[in-house]
Amino acid sequence: MKIFDDKMVEEAARVNHVADLSHATIGETLLVAQYLEQKTGIPFIRMDQGSPGLPINKYGVEAEKRALDSGIGSQYPAAAGVKELKEAASEFVKAFLNIDISPRACLPTVGSVAGSFGSFIACCQRKSYPQMGKVLFIDPGFPIQKSQLRILGIEWKEFDIFPYRGEALRAKLEDELKDGDVAAIVYSNPNNPAWISLEEDELQIIGELATKHDVIVMEDLAYFAMDNRRDLSHPYVEPYVRTVARYTDNYLLMLSASKIFSYAGQRIALVCISDKLFDRKCPAFAERYHDEGVFGPTFIASIQYMITSGCTATTQYGYAEMLRLSCEGKINFVEDTKAYAIRAEKMKRIFCDNGFTITYPKDVTETIGDGFFFSLSYPGMSGSELVKELIHYGVSSINLDTTGSLQQGVRACTSRMRDELYSVLEERMRQFKEDHQ
Amino acid sequence: MKIFDDKMVEEAARVNHVADLSHATIGETLLVAQYLEQKTGIPFIRMDQGSPGLPINKYGVEAEKRALDSGIGSQYPAAAGVKELKEAASEFVKAFLNIDISPRACLPTVGSVAGSFGSFIACCQRKSYPQMGKVLFIDPGFPIQKSQLRILGIEWKEFDIFPYRGEALRAKLEDELKDGDVAAIVYSNPNNPAWISLEEDELQIIGELATKHDVIVMEDLAYFAMDNRRDLSHPYVEPYVRTVARYTDNYLLMLSASKIFSYAGQRIALVCISDKLFDRKCPAFAERYHDEGVFGPTFIASIQYMITSGCTATTQYGYAEMLRLSCEGKINFVEDTKAYAIRAEKMKRIFCDNGFTITYPKDVTETIGDGFFFSLSYPGMSGSELVKELIHYGVSSINLDTTGSLQQGVRACTSRMRDELYSVLEERMRQFKEDHQ
Repeated sequence: MKIFDDKMVEEAARVNHVADLSHATIGETLLVAQYLEQKTGIPFIRMDQGSPGLPINKYGVEAEKRALDSGIGSQYPAAAGVKELKEAASEFVKAFLNIDISPRACLPTVGSVAGSFGSFIACCQRKSYPQMGKVLFIDPGFPIQKSQLRILGIEWKEFDIFPYRGEALRAKLEDELKDGDVAAIVYSNPNNPAWISLEEDELQIIGELATKHDVIVMEDLAYFAMDNRRDLSHPYVEPYVRTVARYTDNYLLMLSASKIFSYAGQRIALVCISDKLFDRKCPAFAERYHDEGVFGPTFIASIQYMITSGCTATTQYGYAEMLRLSCEGKINFVEDTKAYAIRAEKMKRIFCDNGFTITYPKDVTETIGDGFFFSLSYPGMSGSELVKELIHYGVSSINLDTTGSLQQGVRACTSRMRDELYSVLEERMRQFKEDHQ
Repeated sequence: MKIFDDKMVEEAARVNHVADLSHATIGETLLVAQYLEQKTGIPFIRMDQGSPGLPINKYGVEAEKRALDSGIGSQYPAAAGVKELKEAASEFVKAFLNIDISPRACLPTVGSVAGSFGSFIACCQRKSYPQMGKVLFIDPGFPIQKSQLRILGIEWKEFDIFPYRGEALRAKLEDELKDGDVAAIVYSNPNNPAWISLEEDELQIIGELATKHDVIVMEDLAYFAMDNRRDLSHPYVEPYVRTVARYTDNYLLMLSASKIFSYAGQRIALVCISDKLFDRKCPAFAERYHDEGVFGPTFIASIQYMITSGCTATTQYGYAEMLRLSCEGKINFVEDTKAYAIRAEKMKRIFCDNGFTITYPKDVTETIGDGFFFSLSYPGMSGSELVKELIHYGVSSINLDTTGSLQQGVRACTSRMRDELYSVLEERMRQFKEDHQ
């Protein structure tokens, strides 16, 4: 039997102005789950929003407090970011990616959301004026990024990578890029929502084609080193985190503090730009912004600075400290976030024991790892049916079709899982199975 | 005799990639002044950038530290802002403007720069899709706002208010608005750069015409209550700060913490939206964003949230505390920032004693007050000549023509003035006068 009947679920949707529960956004789903919880007192298994479920990094907090006491919060931070953060970012990229990016090309942003917003503008305005290039999404992906393009009036193309893993990616990408209208390629690695990871060969294909077609790769590393299949926790030691930066000079890396340091509320991230790209002449920029038309300086001074005039000064010092201590081995952010992988492993087992399958189960050569997200399907059920049906059993998730996926399933996030809820989840999924034989 | 000769000034411009000193941006001017200072050890009178020159508000700092210790920095802040800040904002608007805006319609932004960026998008996309309306600037104004429109591809119109003060403003505005292509009217009050203030009759004209032509007024109150001609420091007591909100329902107020609380580095501000506007149906929004198409919710969830995903959580608590204590009379931000008016009065006297005049000397019925900025002219010299010539005497300023002004003069900012520099300024301006008889 269902925990919440149709009438109650419909009421929750109606009261919260959710027109279509099957394709609800994260924000909408969250409201429905909260409503049902509050109304009935029955706890929800909240697999909807990817907000950190671990305590904030204390080193960052203490560094922020010191910066607050120093009084620097009265002054506008430098447009390019505070020196300490830029240097720590450059060092961090060296320590964990084994890539060289100079401090001048590491730019703090108000979270990776602001980072991708500015990067879309820079990439799509780089080659022509007033026309803008298109964005190509290697999906599934983060819905907010498409919403950003709606604001800006930038067009996009997208494809679900599911049938194009490995060498098949080359022909697909060639086909998408051949018209020359694509300015940027975007993906997250590990992937939000499916937790797949691009393998070395795939990154090489993307890098080679980005160079060939002069397209910029925006690599979103929000879940940096959170793939638990390899031990990525040692600075300056192999294995390094995989990155397209090894295969092209046309890249921007987005490094969020939100997940690896449980720092989402402070809104701080970095866009680290390839030095070669940083120095590239872009006549379309000069035409639009009446500046010198060089990628890095235009990105910093004519675009990002005009959107937020820098990032919270004291938070920059907090992030700098956490990056610095990570390079010194005093913070082990990989270990600190391992809880998510442990939760994923347990949750996946409960679901799979009750008839569910993992929608995106493997990379090219390996089974996917455990971490922040996973994908779930149920035989004979579409993603739209599944997301709605799960709500009746007190489990909130996101329909994969809102992420550009063509597979039938939902995204599950492990961040809010709590120890006392595993037995609840187990009981509910046993019931779910019984009701859907 | 000049302090810095032509060769040295040219070198400073060249090394810092400043193509044209006469029309240099604030950032460029700042680099030239810093370069000359460092090269020679001779102090500059830095009248360029409007960064606070007073210590950060300690109540905000302590509240931020408490919020950091509470651990809330790990979680994404609510899209609409934290409850405490929204409620304090609504109360502050009541206490100092005597205007009613409900907490739900008070939205924190990453500084007023992010506030105006999002507001431009919302206002210009409100009436049609995919076309966007134009912005009308009542100049002189803040150059960054035009740079924001360059990013977004939004067109603008502008006029210098100098010859259109008082009732003359009505016919001018009617003329600018008659084509129906204007979506928003922008100005700052008190004005950056000229420190003029719109009088009650002028605000009424703007409000009436905004209603008549269905245009939204974006009122930038960055220098809130910093006009020293009236005592605006008492909450819930007349006189209140002047605002267009008394004359139309089509308004957004931008309330920055940067100047009134010396909080620029923390990047926090508010956009307070008229409740009637907040609830207005906007079909063009529904078409573009596939949301319900209501002004406030679209502005919050489909626009502002997609640009920064909220503002630094702990800083929101700092701002909330400062607003709350201001309403309770425990912080007197008017008194706290009076130093700027005292500096302006002394600096203006030194300049005027040596042949300078105030470019924008008066409002409709009164001489302008003293505060953060003032405008300066020198007989027989264009603004371009003056800004360059002053650099030779160790004084940095901004050409008024970079702010949309048609008057010949420069903007002077009082924020970096220090007691020991008055005699230096006096000596240099005496020399300036002697050299330009």
